[in-house]
Amino acid sequence: MAIETEPICWLDIPGADEVPDEVKELWAKPLEKLGFVPNVLRVYAIRPRHLQLWNAFYDDLMRGESGLTKAQREMIAVVVSTANRCHYCIVSHSAALRKLTGDPLLVEQLASNYTYAKVEPKERAMLDFAVKLTERSSSCTETDVDALREAGWTDEEIMDIAEVAAMFNFTNRLASGLGWRPNDEYVSLGR
Amino acid sequence: MAIETEPICWLDIPGADEVPDEVKELWAKPLEKLGFVPNVLRVYAIRPRHLQLWNAFYDDLMRGESGLTKAQREMIAVVVSTANRCHYCIVSHSAALRKLTGDPLLVEQLASNYTYAKVEPKERAMLDFAVKLTERSSSCTETDVDALREAGWTDEEIMDIAEVAAMFNFTNRLASGLGWRPNDEYVSLGR
Amino acid sequence: MAIETEPICWLDIPGADEVPDEVKELWAKPLEKLGFVPNVLRVYAIRPRHLQLWNAFYDDLMRGESGLTKAQREMIAVVVSTANRCHYCIVSHSAALRKLTGDPLLVEQLASNYTYAKVEPKERAMLDFAVKLTERSSSCTETDVDALREAGWTDEEIMDIAEVAAMFNFTNRLASGLGWRPNDEYVSLGR
Amino acid sequence: MAIETEPICWLDIPGADEVPDEVKELWAKPLEKLGFVPNVLRVYAIRPRHLQLWNAFYDDLMRGESGLTKAQREMIAVVVSTANRCHYCIVSHSAALRKLTGDPLLVEQLASNYTYAKVEPKERAMLDFAVKLTERSSSCTETDVDALREAGWTDEEIMDIAEVAAMFNFTNRLASGLGWRPNDEYVSLGR
Amino acid sequence: MAIETEPICWLDIPGADEVPDEVKELWAKPLEKLGFVPNVLRVYAIRPRHLQLWNAFYDDLMRGESGLTKAQREMIAVVVSTANRCHYCIVSHSAALRKLTGDPLLVEQLASNYTYAKVEPKERAMLDFAVKLTERSSSCTETDVDALREAGWTDEEIMDIAEVAAMFNFTNRLASGLGWRPNDEYVSLGR
Amino acid sequence: MAIETEPICWLDIPGADEVPDEVKELWAKPLEKLGFVPNVLRVYAIRPRHLQLWNAFYDDLMRGESGLTKAQREMIAVVVSTANRCHYCIVSHSAALRKLTGDPLLVEQLASNYTYAKVEPKERAMLDFAVKLTERSSSCTETDVDALREAGWTDEEIMDIAEVAAMFNFTNRLASGLGWRPNDEYVSLGR
Repeated sequence: MAIETEPICWLDIPGADEVPDEVKELWAKPLEKLGFVPNVLRVYAIRPRHLQLWNAFYDDLMRGESGLTKAQREMIAVVVSTANRCHYCIVSHSAALRKLTGDPLLVEQLASNYTYAKVEPKERAMLDFAVKLTERSSSCTETDVDALREAGWTDEEIMDIAEVAAMFNFTNRLASGLGWRPNDEYVSLGR
Repeated sequence: MAIETEPICWLDIPGADEVPDEVKELWAKPLEKLGFVPNVLRVYAIRPRHLQLWNAFYDDLMRGESGLTKAQREMIAVVVSTANRCHYCIVSHSAALRKLTGDPLLVEQLASNYTYAKVEPKERAMLDFAVKLTERSSSCTETDVDALREAGWTDEEIMDIAEVAAMFNFTNRLASGLGWRPNDEYVSLGR
Repeated sequence: MAIETEPICWLDIPGADEVPDEVKELWAKPLEKLGFVPNVLRVYAIRPRHLQLWNAFYDDLMRGESGLTKAQREMIAVVVSTANRCHYCIVSHSAALRKLTGDPLLVEQLASNYTYAKVEPKERAMLDFAVKLTERSSSCTETDVDALREAGWTDEEIMDIAEVAAMFNFTNRLASGLGWRPNDEYVSLGR
Repeated sequence: MAIETEPICWLDIPGADEVPDEVKELWAKPLEKLGFVPNVLRVYAIRPRHLQLWNAFYDDLMRGESGLTKAQREMIAVVVSTANRCHYCIVSHSAALRKLTGDPLLVEQLASNYTYAKVEPKERAMLDFAVKLTERSSSCTETDVDALREAGWTDEEIMDIAEVAAMFNFTNRLASGLGWRPNDEYVSLGR
Repeated sequence: MAIETEPICWLDIPGADEVPDEVKELWAKPLEKLGFVPNVLRVYAIRPRHLQLWNAFYDDLMRGESGLTKAQREMIAVVVSTANRCHYCIVSHSAALRKLTGDPLLVEQLASNYTYAKVEPKERAMLDFAVKLTERSSSCTETDVDALREAGWTDEEIMDIAEVAAMFNFTNRLASGLGWRPNDEYVSLGR
Repeated sequence: MAIETEPICWLDIPGADEVPDEVKELWAKPLEKLGFVPNVLRVYAIRPRHLQLWNAFYDDLMRGESGLTKAQREMIAVVVSTANRCHYCIVSHSAALRKLTGDPLLVEQLASNYTYAKVEPKERAMLDFAVKLTERSSSCTETDVDALREAGWTDEEIMDIAEVAAMFNFTNRLASGLGWRPNDEYVSLGR
């Protein structure tokens, strides 16, 4: 594991020795799987109980049972984070989506201007909704929901699309508001 | 409890008979305390497991141990929701803040233009940060965090301010994107 | 009458003893009707002649003969002021509309996100136009006027809708630019 | 007087034969002075009483006693109308300011980007405030008022600056929302 | 030739004696034709080689063979520069368009709000595209290109429209970013 | 060379057999160097003379003598294109900058949110100016130029910074307005 010698956020966060066991448990799995602890799990350790509860929700939303594939959920993550210009989440979720799809070209399209991405019409409708939710949520109407239904999504799936888009409006604000830096390892992941 | 005869969101949601027991348990407490089930718990029942996990996180964030008072957390809720023009959350959290403070004048100030609200300088700094996080998160800098420290907030508390502001950027998007309507009862609550 | 001990605007305004008789006459009617002098009539007293002429125009526009009901004109006032985030006008005209309609629920809908307000389609068209006029006047087209005609408004009434919307773009700027504070009494008025 | 054969606004307005005498009186003075009736007085004739009352207020505000010169008031008119991209008011008030100043160069600077206009620092402060009032009124603070005082304006004059800027936020919306066309004669006026 | 005694941009630029012969040659033609050297050719002389290469491209684009008339290309120049509020380019290209068309009325319409300009439907489509390209290029779609085809433009001509609009997005940024002042002579040119 | 079987822009462009020799000459160098012809040179071939003149200017600006390194010029390209969300230019200039610097991490920082990029203060000032020029050119002031001087740039170099930033405001609009697709090869270039 690379030793981070420069700050990974603007807050003073606990060192690896100071975090409680519950947090260390959360670190174990990605450390084994990726070879490093994602910085989000380090910076969020400043509030261990919040981290656990957020992580439980986030994990089920992104990896639990759903009518959306994991890749589709990560597509939303990349596109919403790009709309919000969130450095941490663009970099880390671009890596995640590359790993899931093995398609760096698709990821680069989504992370620059998603309207150029070669995705199914059903997925394009999903991304259009996610971006509108991000940039102009107060002007959403029932027509936007109908467009998703016509594209083939069920109401449960529309709920999931909205939740995932909303989730990255949550994480993007934490990351951008508190100056989170992604692990350098992400850049080469999934290539 | 008033019987809602018109839709409370744009999705087809399960009727009271169809929700699983875990959801009904979530309904019990507010029903007893407020006399009605907040519509958020009805519409979110379309995805029971997500509701439970989100609710566990939300509940700890808003009512759990923190350097912020409950009223301060609800002040952020009102101000962020006003910035996002989220009908559901403005109405419901204005009610919550009236109940906590017994101060409808303060709530009306926060829900129209928070810069006119009579709050402590420390709270004003908190609200300024919450609004910047909401409207221009990608241009936040370390200076914004320092301003909170100078106003008297610890780093743990700054994390909580950011999390609460981020949380309403989550719920505002669900509510506005899916057409949630608040319970009519909220309007007179806390007056 | 409550004695205001803190400033009600950012300009140095004349005290009650210093205003000319014509201004005092303007104060008499609301004082009798509401039990207080609306702060707008105090702060505007810095320019007595302007106050009289503005008030004569405003009064006829809002309360004179028109194809719009007084409540409809106040609905425009609330919605335009919300779009402009004008603290003074949101608070005072929300009160006025509550008094006229006896419907605090409707007012709260209009003052948070008017698209959730339960109004007639004809009134919805009126509000859509008022908001477009407020936020993007330079992109209005003849099609917008036709939409009002199709909704059932005559050309004289369309003129009134435009004038009322324009009027609050006037008052909102005075109030927000000069730091006007509404009388505390407004918050409980009409409940 | 040139006969207008094409519509001068999107509403059906009364013909010259149909307007009441009070309106015709308003037409007489500019007809004598300019050689034509400004279209604003024709289109506003759809609501004769509103026209009279608005005109009385407008006339005193723009030409009555004030610490601002007439030219300074017209400078605000041009700059606010440019910020709002109001065709009618840019054209007609550019002409008015040319007549008052005999300086077409100054007018062209104000009507393209006022920060390039060669005006006194005191006037620049006046214009900065007028533009902020126009574009971001809800973020005005007491500091903006103080900047005007430091530039040499009294509180009565600051009220006048705010009123004039607000007035063109009124007229710009009427003109742009209802498709008013300025008289062709304006283009060559004052050159 | 009027002697400019005040700075015409924010950079220190070479005096007339210091510029190389290639630049002086560029100055000769407009000096003969207009009676003065356009300030763009003076300020750009800080980088003589760039000036020559840019000028060769610009000259062919604006005056070379094309399906667009020279006046149509200048119409785009005025409308794009107005959208970008570029003082230098509004003033200088308004003059150029007056000279080409002899129609100061048309120019004033284009320079205030082009939707009021009396132009052919084909030209209106051209200007709509130029403004969208200027203000929201990342949301352009193939539908925008089709609208130009339906209006009667060939694909070569659409390329020219896009190039001319793009060119003024180039020059507007140089002029506004570096504080270029147009020659005073432009104001009376073409009247 | 991969055969592009799907359209690379929204216009009908000449096939490889139809382009004049001058254009083919422009294709030869990158074909040899990169192994493919950048799509910009294919789509721009619809107007061969414009392509030649633009390319001559572009080439000197980006690769000619300058106080800016080639990498610094490409940094501006990436950051401006990201601000404009231009798919073609983000992808192609990210590749170019990776080749020049061998630093994919830096490029990913610049292409997501440049304020997180680890660059010299002098370069940060350069990028801040490029972004302001891109997003709010009409509010640039002499102070912005002074900030560049204080960061260590000469006036000639400031001209180059402005020109390069302006150039990508040109190309971004062509690419986004006409639907240019970058060559797939770019994604893996420079890794």
